[in-house]
Amino acid sequence: MNNQWQSYPFINTQLQSVNQCIQNRISCNNADLQQALLAMANNGGKYLRPAVLLTIGQICGAKDEERLIKLAASIEILHMATLIHDDIIDDSPQRRGAVSIQTRFGKDTAVYAGDLLFTVFFKLLLETVPDSDYLKVNAHTMRKILNGELGQMDQRFNTTQSLKSYLHDVNGKTAALFRLAAQEGAYFAGASSRAVAMAAKYGQNLGIAFQMLDDILDYTGDQSLNKPVMEDLATGVYSLPLLLALQQPAAAAELKPLLAKRYQLTATDMASVQQIVVASGAIEQSRTLAGKFTQKALACLQALPDSRSRRFLEKMTKRLLKRTI
Amino acid sequence: MNNQWQSYPFINTQLQSVNQCIQNRISCNNADLQQALLAMANNGGKYLRPAVLLTIGQICGAKDEERLIKLAASIEILHMATLIHDDIIDDSPQRRGAVSIQTRFGKDTAVYAGDLLFTVFFKLLLETVPDSDYLKVNAHTMRKILNGELGQMDQRFNTTQSLKSYLHDVNGKTAALFRLAAQEGAYFAGASSRAVAMAAKYGQNLGIAFQMLDDILDYTGDQSLNKPVMEDLATGVYSLPLLLALQQPAAAAELKPLLAKRYQLTATDMASVQQIVVASGAIEQSRTLAGKFTQKALACLQALPDSRSRRFLEKMTKRLLKRTI
Repeated sequence: MNNQWQSYPFINTQLQSVNQCIQNRISCNNADLQQALLAMANNGGKYLRPAVLLTIGQICGAKDEERLIKLAASIEILHMATLIHDDIIDDSPQRRGAVSIQTRFGKDTAVYAGDLLFTVFFKLLLETVPDSDYLKVNAHTMRKILNGELGQMDQRFNTTQSLKSYLHDVNGKTAALFRLAAQEGAYFAGASSRAVAMAAKYGQNLGIAFQMLDDILDYTGDQSLNKPVMEDLATGVYSLPLLLALQQPAAAAELKPLLAKRYQLTATDMASVQQIVVASGAIEQSRTLAGKFTQKALACLQALPDSRSRRFLEKMTKRLLKRTI
Repeated sequence: MNNQWQSYPFINTQLQSVNQCIQNRISCNNADLQQALLAMANNGGKYLRPAVLLTIGQICGAKDEERLIKLAASIEILHMATLIHDDIIDDSPQRRGAVSIQTRFGKDTAVYAGDLLFTVFFKLLLETVPDSDYLKVNAHTMRKILNGELGQMDQRFNTTQSLKSYLHDVNGKTAALFRLAAQEGAYFAGASSRAVAMAAKYGQNLGIAFQMLDDILDYTGDQSLNKPVMEDLATGVYSLPLLLALQQPAAAAELKPLLAKRYQLTATDMASVQQIVVASGAIEQSRTLAGKFTQKALACLQALPDSRSRRFLEKMTKRLLKRTI
């Protein structure tokens, strides 16, 4: 877990417990792999989804802190499982600033490592959620995430993907888990059904804005930071800035011959794509769109009780728009 | 589903319903993938685990046929998910006599296809099992399967793997799911706790014998049949006949220089390994051992009420020892 939470002890202490819970749950009969999974749980993860769950829980007056911590851990474990499998798809050499599981142990172990975390998620959930409705919400979320990933995969190299189709996939692959985190935080704090619904909407909008920022950073980020730049493009995933640039005839005319090279894109080609996208103004357009979803998220938060925790979440939500990593 | 059940209408009709349930449940927003998953559900699968669950259910006087059919479908779906991920690990070109998902769509899609089936399994289970204890039994089984796979992976190229360690991995990767099938069949038919325990033990012993036969067929099978021969060896998995041959000093002396080539084994090398293993008598030893587990399985069946269904299961259990595919 990285240290961005240190100035907020009321959330940092709970996140430390989440981290401890994850460490206790990760066990497998391959010592190397276990160590790698522990390292992944400890290094560099932002623990954003657990932070959302726990803060919403605080806003809604949660009493059963232990259950919320376990739920927050279950969500981070599900997130880790999807990251490990995503890295196989993307052939990512790095994850959270360290060598990815698939690079260190091979694709083979990475497949099972992700599967193992799915079972850890499943087990933790069964111990924590007495209520079959919320187990179903979790199963449905897993399904949405996968369908988002499969949708994105289906759209690879599609230069005419619509914004609607992009949003549909993002709703699945990223927003569904933020939605679940916020929804569970409110529900298991005993909030009213209206508050639970608003929390869910908050999480979903936050997740969309978060993914859009991620897409922007793929075009503007610094290679020396945690995340490799232009990673999506290399695997044929055309994310928001590129899709918006492709909607402009002049930029599209320049981009299409380059994109036609598909997997044969060289580093120079990718730099050209980046330049064309930046010059087209698509980055600013993307930021404006992300800003709209951030505003929607903030509006949902207003429906929850005012408190120090809510003000903190507002601040964090706004800050996500300005993040550079 | 293949047609070996046609002479047994009392089980065949139920298996047709299992197949229909699986077809109804498989849906994803990638038409090609959906078609491939449907093809996998329909082609060549032996539906052994569902058959075990349903027959044990019949033996124990099940009334709620619909629930047992859904449970049988959930187990076959979990099995399919593990097969898809195993094929990634093994780089298998074929599965159930057809091109594997990973060969047809690439490893990437195969990772998500398996994950998707995990979510289908999870959802179906939540709709069918009201009782959190049995959800936990399912989660525990998934975990055991994965730990068995990881254990096997950890032992790759180990020429001194003990029989105990082999059995431990087989208990996970294969026997756990047979055990679950038999256990759920009895439990959800309302059997006594002793009958449920004996059914579980039956399933576990059957699963071990089944895996041993699979290992034997890898050394003796016909390449023109569904399963490629010597597939395990090529990926460094030393299965029962090879492990038993390695326990004989003379055979070990011949085998070790060949095995030292690891991934560089040529087709000729593999044929030599096969020949040495066959000449060592390890195939017969393996058959004897598999026979012992079959006998244990049959003894457990005796604890269940006598009926046409039980006699059928006895016949099927014995026949597994003689199968050639």
